[in-house]
Amino acid sequence: MIAPTPKPPYYAVIFTSIRSEMDEGYTEMAYQMMDSVAKMDGFLGVESAREEIGITVSYWSDIEAIKAWKKETKHKRAQKRGKEQWYDFYKVRIAKVERDYEMEKENK
Amino acid sequence: MIAPTPKPPYYAVIFTSIRSEMDEGYTEMAYQMMDSVAKMDGFLGVESAREEIGITVSYWSDIEAIKAWKKETKHKRAQKRGKEQWYDFYKVRIAKVERDYEMEKENK
Repeated sequence: MIAPTPKPPYYAVIFTSIRSEMDEGYTEMAYQMMDSVAKMDGFLGVESAREEIGITVSYWSDIEAIKAWKKETKHKRAQKRGKEQWYDFYKVRIAKVERDYEMEKENK
Repeated sequence: MIAPTPKPPYYAVIFTSIRSEMDEGYTEMAYQMMDSVAKMDGFLGVESAREEIGITVSYWSDIEAIKAWKKETKHKRAQKRGKEQWYDFYKVRIAKVERDYEMEKENK
């Protein structure tokens, strides 16, 4: 669930969105995109949650991998429908992860 | 809801977490942290959503501002309780936002 990313540096694409009221085809496309993205070279993982806003963070080895995903055919169709139908607003931020650390509880 | 960040570069702290079953004091602390963080120099905004995992992304003008927040007294207390009580797992990623773009629908 939490992406097992390698040691930095690597890249994050932070996609924050507000959904529209149009729901048709959204869930199916979301699953298709999860399948498609996992096949991309340089894809490291993805994390996602939605309440009032949605946040999806995908992780990538480098900027070229992110560019290739932006141009991928099925993803381009999804982007078009996203703009036209599913989102009232979204923001995409491309960021270079410089450091990370984590905590895992031993006695859950 | 979606943070109105300035033109890049700026920094993002991506905090991804899995909650424990212990809930006591969590919501109150979360509100207190939202108040405290908003007073920090260099704080630009925050976005948050939780489903199976929680994702909170805070935005900052620079690394020094992030370091100051990590050391802030109330935040340090919250971090301690977070490790001991509220989280089974978390990961923190510090990333430099290099580019961003957005879409806003005109006819909602």
